[in-house]
Amino acid sequence: MQLENIRSPRDLQDLSQEELADLARQIRETLVETVSRRGGHLASNLGVVELTLALHRVFDLSDDRVIFDVGHQSYVHKLITGRYWRFGSLRTFGGLSGFPKRAESEYDVFETGHASTAISAALGLARARDQLGERRRIIAVVGDGAMTGGLCYEALNDAGSSGTRLIVILNDNEMSISQNVGALSSHLTDLRVSKGWNSTKRRVRSRLQRIPLVGKPVYRFIHASKSFLRSLFIDEGFFTSLGFRYIGPIDGHDEERLEQILRKAALIEGPVLVHVLTQKGHGYDKAEQQPERFHGTPPFYVESGNARETSLLPPYGRVMAEGLCELAKENDRIVAVTAAMAQGTGLDLFAEAYPKQIFDVGIAEEHAVTMAAGMAAGGLRPYVAIYASFFQRAFDQLIHDVAMQRLPVVFLIDRAGLVGEDGATHHGVFDLAEALPVPGLTVLAPRDICELRHMIRWTPQSEGPVMIRYGRTPADMSERYPCKRFTPGRWEVLERGADCVLMAVGSMVETAVSVRDLLLKEGVEAAVVNCSTVKPLDEKLLRAFSDRPMFTLEEHLLTGGFASAVTGFLVAEELPPPRIAFGLPDTFVQHGARQQLLRLLGLTPAQLTRRILAVLPHDSERSERG
Amino acid sequence: MQLENIRSPRDLQDLSQEELADLARQIRETLVETVSRRGGHLASNLGVVELTLALHRVFDLSDDRVIFDVGHQSYVHKLITGRYWRFGSLRTFGGLSGFPKRAESEYDVFETGHASTAISAALGLARARDQLGERRRIIAVVGDGAMTGGLCYEALNDAGSSGTRLIVILNDNEMSISQNVGALSSHLTDLRVSKGWNSTKRRVRSRLQRIPLVGKPVYRFIHASKSFLRSLFIDEGFFTSLGFRYIGPIDGHDEERLEQILRKAALIEGPVLVHVLTQKGHGYDKAEQQPERFHGTPPFYVESGNARETSLLPPYGRVMAEGLCELAKENDRIVAVTAAMAQGTGLDLFAEAYPKQIFDVGIAEEHAVTMAAGMAAGGLRPYVAIYASFFQRAFDQLIHDVAMQRLPVVFLIDRAGLVGEDGATHHGVFDLAEALPVPGLTVLAPRDICELRHMIRWTPQSEGPVMIRYGRTPADMSERYPCKRFTPGRWEVLERGADCVLMAVGSMVETAVSVRDLLLKEGVEAAVVNCSTVKPLDEKLLRAFSDRPMFTLEEHLLTGGFASAVTGFLVAEELPPPRIAFGLPDTFVQHGARQQLLRLLGLTPAQLTRRILAVLPHDSERSERG
Repeated sequence: MQLENIRSPRDLQDLSQEELADLARQIRETLVETVSRRGGHLASNLGVVELTLALHRVFDLSDDRVIFDVGHQSYVHKLITGRYWRFGSLRTFGGLSGFPKRAESEYDVFETGHASTAISAALGLARARDQLGERRRIIAVVGDGAMTGGLCYEALNDAGSSGTRLIVILNDNEMSISQNVGALSSHLTDLRVSKGWNSTKRRVRSRLQRIPLVGKPVYRFIHASKSFLRSLFIDEGFFTSLGFRYIGPIDGHDEERLEQILRKAALIEGPVLVHVLTQKGHGYDKAEQQPERFHGTPPFYVESGNARETSLLPPYGRVMAEGLCELAKENDRIVAVTAAMAQGTGLDLFAEAYPKQIFDVGIAEEHAVTMAAGMAAGGLRPYVAIYASFFQRAFDQLIHDVAMQRLPVVFLIDRAGLVGEDGATHHGVFDLAEALPVPGLTVLAPRDICELRHMIRWTPQSEGPVMIRYGRTPADMSERYPCKRFTPGRWEVLERGADCVLMAVGSMVETAVSVRDLLLKEGVEAAVVNCSTVKPLDEKLLRAFSDRPMFTLEEHLLTGGFASAVTGFLVAEELPPPRIAFGLPDTFVQHGARQQLLRLLGLTPAQLTRRILAVLPHDSERSERG
Repeated sequence: MQLENIRSPRDLQDLSQEELADLARQIRETLVETVSRRGGHLASNLGVVELTLALHRVFDLSDDRVIFDVGHQSYVHKLITGRYWRFGSLRTFGGLSGFPKRAESEYDVFETGHASTAISAALGLARARDQLGERRRIIAVVGDGAMTGGLCYEALNDAGSSGTRLIVILNDNEMSISQNVGALSSHLTDLRVSKGWNSTKRRVRSRLQRIPLVGKPVYRFIHASKSFLRSLFIDEGFFTSLGFRYIGPIDGHDEERLEQILRKAALIEGPVLVHVLTQKGHGYDKAEQQPERFHGTPPFYVESGNARETSLLPPYGRVMAEGLCELAKENDRIVAVTAAMAQGTGLDLFAEAYPKQIFDVGIAEEHAVTMAAGMAAGGLRPYVAIYASFFQRAFDQLIHDVAMQRLPVVFLIDRAGLVGEDGATHHGVFDLAEALPVPGLTVLAPRDICELRHMIRWTPQSEGPVMIRYGRTPADMSERYPCKRFTPGRWEVLERGADCVLMAVGSMVETAVSVRDLLLKEGVEAAVVNCSTVKPLDEKLLRAFSDRPMFTLEEHLLTGGFASAVTGFLVAEELPPPRIAFGLPDTFVQHGARQQLLRLLGLTPAQLTRRILAVLPHDSERSERG
């Protein structure tokens, strides 16, 4: 059977185990080939090939329902639900999404992107089924990493007591995005060493030891956690205390065995947890060896595993981490906190230098923030690095635990703005709306890596909480505009010009300079201001520049963003508001290359220049004035 | 020893058990007397008298640290940490807060108000201690209700694996705000029936049976949960699987025994959980019998337990629940979801009529919202009732799980605006900032109970998500302005007037009408518009009224609120922005009677009128124009 001939999961039904094994091989080839060109999530998808096949053979997922937690491991599911022919368009503008999308297929019933939501959503589907007198099966597939999220626990607790029919598949690949942390991880490891599950254990263990980079530490970790061993029936303990039947652990690459177990689970009338062991990157040696590197990867060469293009500039995360290392050198109160994203945020660099001063709390953004508040109350200077879209999870903790007590926690908000190929769930476009209403929070956005360095250097002087937002794409403008010492609340005039002023935030400062150059060709002299402190506003400078047409530029929703703050201030002062506020409209922006998305939204320098020229007085009028 | 002579916890050290018992009695008297006059949290404080005394005798809390989760059970702690003489000012403007406040006392080290934060914060303090080479003990006191919050789990998981010294006291009073729900609750109950903890068990059980309203159901619940019984060492299972040593359960009203156990716990070098059983309302029969009624209570008569004043108007929550019942009569897809606040939100009424269509998920707002999204994806019409300040916890779930898929979930956001005596942690002043940036979310705010009825009636027609915000204080303007059928996106002109227009939201509509009456006495004819849909704006009406001075009124932060949306629209249309935006400034508002707070903020009708008159053209100018 050729993968390209699988038009729907029904075509899987009559395959023999040999044919399935061959299909799994084809799927892996397709995954590696496509992701090597398009970038995306590889290791996790390679890990769930057999599991996904088994799910589609045991269940009728046109009626039964499966929700993939975090969603980035749904590629296999896409390949066998009629999307093979479009799979080459993965993560491109107008192409297939890297996450489940209801508009793409009837087999995608609930969209995911952030971790730990699937059990809650599945329980909602299960309750809807019960209420409407339907019979369908509901399955949530959750990674062990996502299990550290409190949302999972809230859902397990509620589902367990509800007694409703629900299958949770714990896809235990022994690491979340970075190596799994927390007691639960140790607990899961315990299951492996404490229960007599015969051959599977030995196979997995020997497989683990063969993986050079990850295997050894994981294996050591197993042996370091002996203190937990006394709970012999701990598997019974954790999930069953939450009201779940527990089945497992099962070798997640043994398709036949998976089918047997899933058929058994399907018969259980209450909530059941099936514990499946998989290997991230399974079947592609580079990814098996470096599952973290191949978690989310840019395009790469299949042979070597090396990335096809590497940026010339260091990413913001690295610059941040270097800055943090510098601070920590002189100050042992500096600590870093990450929610399972040491590598993504750049903090792995800090972890190497100061392993005792970094705390990885697992996928648990709420806890990361409240715990940091506790650290600050205890006299430390915590730096919490989180992606902008995940920071949405800690809105209440930011307000209630940090800002209300004016605790000096610094939030390092990465991936602010459009992230590109990951799309709507991952764009960081709500973070200013989240931050600006919070009393006493200082909100910064560097124009480039050089300014970020200076901002980090300043942070220990802050008496209250600080948030610094920066995007995925680094800029370095220091050749044209050398960096000065950073002073919060004071904006930087990069260019003078009497015809209009461009007030730009973060990533849009570089754009504003390009717009300024284009405007100059049209005879328009635009001032450019780097509004590096979004809160508080530089009121003095705003007043000074209110004598000419003003344009604001930001890579954020216009609602609740920078323009909204500037306009509010100017109107209250009875000064003329901005002529045009450039930013994102009131809609969810889909996936695609960042440049394509910016063009779609009219935010390229050429587009901005045209729109500015259209509202400015004509040449003749300007020269009259001059 | 007289309570009034306890100037600091040091004065407790030499007391005998008899003296302590007498002190406990005096504390309970003071609690009942003060709360009967001031309102506040009674039942939970009566439950922790002995526990708080024991904590202060075993630990030196000027150096050791205790954090009370949710904070409303800190009255006893306040009484014995030098605040006895100010205790009469509890919850009044300028007086003692009903929650821990760092500014009040060195014994209040971390502020709480929302549930489930204490373990995270305590772990932060513990890590700060370790980093700084200190030795102090860190204690978190957490109720069993708060334990259903995912934040607790994230923190337990992280703390358990950290191995750091930390004492978590599980204050198990067998009910959170409404009767506890979820598997964990069953699990805790199991501890009671499954372990041989001798006399304590029998004493508690017989005590439980004696409580008329709650005891029986709780007792039945114990016996209904036999299915969990097979896990004999389940206590070992749950907390120890998360890396904690477990001690308990202990009778929480046996002060001597508590001291023994706490001294033991203090010696343990890692994380330890002490399971304490207490009775809400202990020592005041009315509160023992109706712990929910005396959770948060208005002023009451001690003799009868009856409230001193009852509002003539039904609260918004009741009106909402009645509306929901009406809808459910004709539509079995209507379901309600609450996060342990069935009574507070008014949903208890709905629960009585449609017990199978209400889901109490425990203190778990994130899960409530994502679970509701699942319900909607499964074909139901879920209504999620949450207090505004707790809704902050579900910002990401609102965006990521509900709005991105345009699921028709209705959010019923109670306690929006200033809540009064509960203060900063509970004011609902961030909800519009949270909601307005969310694409596709319809945001409503009724002027009064009559309009809320019409809004609820409309909700089943919505194709996407809806949020309705209303405050603690009900209004009924229907005599002067009869209610019409609600049409979303269309504002209601209550009064015509050419001199200016007052654009008011929710609670401020009634205020605007009062302002209008006052202005009229000064010869100014103000139009009054009820801006019942905050998103989308009624653009047609905004354009129509932009010909006269405009004033916006809202009980919300100005940043990110209604004024900000109106101003953004008007400026983009090149129309004149509002002359003054009335709302809350960029600061945390403290506690006090709502009227006092409104006066403090310049938002009473008289104050508003003065400020409007000050910016309007003078009489003579107006008449010239007319």
